[in-house]
Amino acid sequence: MADITLEDILAARERIAGRVRRTPLLGSELLSAQHDAQLYFKCENLQEVGAFKARGATNAVFALSEAELRGGVVAHSSGNHGAAVARAARLRGVGARIVMPEDTSAAKLDMVRAYGAQILLCAPTLAAREALAARTVAETGAAFIHPYDDPRVIAGQGTVGLELLEDLPQLDCILCPVGGGGLSSGVALAVKALQPRVRVIAVEPAAVDDAYRGFHAARAQPPAPAPVSTPASAPQAAPQQAAPVTLADGLRATLSERTLGLIRHHVDDVVTVSEEGIVAAMRALWKHVRTLVEPSSAVPYAALLERRLDLAGQRVAIILTGGNVDLDRLPWSRPALSAPGSAPGHPRARSR
Amino acid sequence: MADITLEDILAARERIAGRVRRTPLLGSELLSAQHDAQLYFKCENLQEVGAFKARGATNAVFALSEAELRGGVVAHSSGNHGAAVARAARLRGVGARIVMPEDTSAAKLDMVRAYGAQILLCAPTLAAREALAARTVAETGAAFIHPYDDPRVIAGQGTVGLELLEDLPQLDCILCPVGGGGLSSGVALAVKALQPRVRVIAVEPAAVDDAYRGFHAARAQPPAPAPVSTPASAPQAAPQQAAPVTLADGLRATLSERTLGLIRHHVDDVVTVSEEGIVAAMRALWKHVRTLVEPSSAVPYAALLERRLDLAGQRVAIILTGGNVDLDRLPWSRPALSAPGSAPGHPRARSR
Repeated sequence: MADITLEDILAARERIAGRVRRTPLLGSELLSAQHDAQLYFKCENLQEVGAFKARGATNAVFALSEAELRGGVVAHSSGNHGAAVARAARLRGVGARIVMPEDTSAAKLDMVRAYGAQILLCAPTLAAREALAARTVAETGAAFIHPYDDPRVIAGQGTVGLELLEDLPQLDCILCPVGGGGLSSGVALAVKALQPRVRVIAVEPAAVDDAYRGFHAARAQPPAPAPVSTPASAPQAAPQQAAPVTLADGLRATLSERTLGLIRHHVDDVVTVSEEGIVAAMRALWKHVRTLVEPSSAVPYAALLERRLDLAGQRVAIILTGGNVDLDRLPWSRPALSAPGSAPGHPRARSR
Repeated sequence: MADITLEDILAARERIAGRVRRTPLLGSELLSAQHDAQLYFKCENLQEVGAFKARGATNAVFALSEAELRGGVVAHSSGNHGAAVARAARLRGVGARIVMPEDTSAAKLDMVRAYGAQILLCAPTLAAREALAARTVAETGAAFIHPYDDPRVIAGQGTVGLELLEDLPQLDCILCPVGGGGLSSGVALAVKALQPRVRVIAVEPAAVDDAYRGFHAARAQPPAPAPVSTPASAPQAAPQQAAPVTLADGLRATLSERTLGLIRHHVDDVVTVSEEGIVAAMRALWKHVRTLVEPSSAVPYAALLERRLDLAGQRVAIILTGGNVDLDRLPWSRPALSAPGSAPGHPRARSR
């Protein structure tokens, strides 16, 4: 396992400068007053492709040599990472193949296609995704770019931490959602290397609390993701996994050994929030910060709403990780207004 | 009528600096490619109180002397101007009374109240608002702050133009919605004084096209707003006016002689858009720029969507004026999903 250092993150910043956005930081007088803290929202939802994933993918693609890129790049993703790799490959002028589950929404398929990538559909299981990606790598010699278990990806995501320290010199605390752990481990690594007194707290839906359990226990919790070196002959139609029950679909991934190790070493705490809290937080951010965030992005603010953290008097940066939302299926749409059988199908979403 | 000059706008910028936000400018690779132009969105929806109105109101309140402020301030508003005056008065440490129609939404009343203003409810007509505001001025000696027919307000709104020229030196064109005309006249005045080759185009809903008609004809179109000097004895329950049929409720006001004069002198063109175009534009901005805009803010982009303008190859700044939206009544909510009788009541809104 390659080590990652501050130098990798500083190099990533140079590499991606001009290729991704330096995203704005928004305040909210009203939410700050409500929580008796100075809140700042780092708008990675306004990043290219609508998510921080553009940073890691761009760093990874531009860190590869021309020889390594001869067969193009491959990624598997049901969402933002696929679009981010597709866009980075187009910027670099190489081909991209993105493995996506066949139940991916048309909007997400369109976004990946709009960046010129070839889409390879597979069964909607992690095993099927990994198997098809591995087979594609074996057949084409393309370079594989993992959504988070890759030092170049982690270093790219860590650039968010550099920008926060620059923009908010008096910062006390950073709140960050955690799914696969690429963002939280990269940000924490950067922040602890430069400003160890700034606390980094990762927040996770209680419904998929592997980071919480892993952080507070001795070792990673199952199921750890299957290694990417799955034999190319692995069956595509692997047994269906039970779908994790969280609206925050960007956070359903589980930590790898690498990201768990980084998080245990550099993150100060991991806390969890409820599904109801995520919906309430998402709505409050739309209303008061007036920026579109997807459910995963609302997870850190939910920790404040649900009083899992007391940050009174502190200057707090909250990372809004992405803004790709289905506008026809908002989680606070009231089923009472919908005709029978036509209600949106989000699990556990509640109106307020 | 007081003249307004570039110097007034420069002075306004000094006066409001640190009291309102310098709002970010967002690009969109995708929308730029779609329209074969470089599009930049000036996010006044991310301004304090969620609208550019914070600029003009803050400039007006801070331009008043202590003697003039002895009775506090008064404004009438069904929306953003009321919150902006309430906030500015609180910053200045003086009282504010905001006259609001009794059918104003609870959310808007709450926002004004949250800034510590006293709310005076009146019948939902312009005449009733103006009469109660005039009576309050007569009784309390408070300073009246008109939503747009006031040189200090216009100068404050014009600071948006200064920021655009600074942030986009190679700018070709600015698109701006027009309602009462405070923003478009202030921006056009600033821009033409500094960079006369930059075109300023005002865009208006076809359903309330008084600016379009006034710009292209010899004189202001009726109904011009009644003067604020309406006798205090005027009846509050004036005859109900027919509600203008546009979703863009922020643009229902009609130009004053002052704003029409400035627009005729400084704006390059006025074009109109349909209600369907406004809904489509609002949805596209939410989806692709990932920022919450209210219908009025979507009006300029609708002119591009409806091909009322050909700006191919140009660098275009589009002013997003506000982001105060009722999240339970989005104009693209499909009536087919709603129970009978419970459909949102927006006039002429269509699903896509």
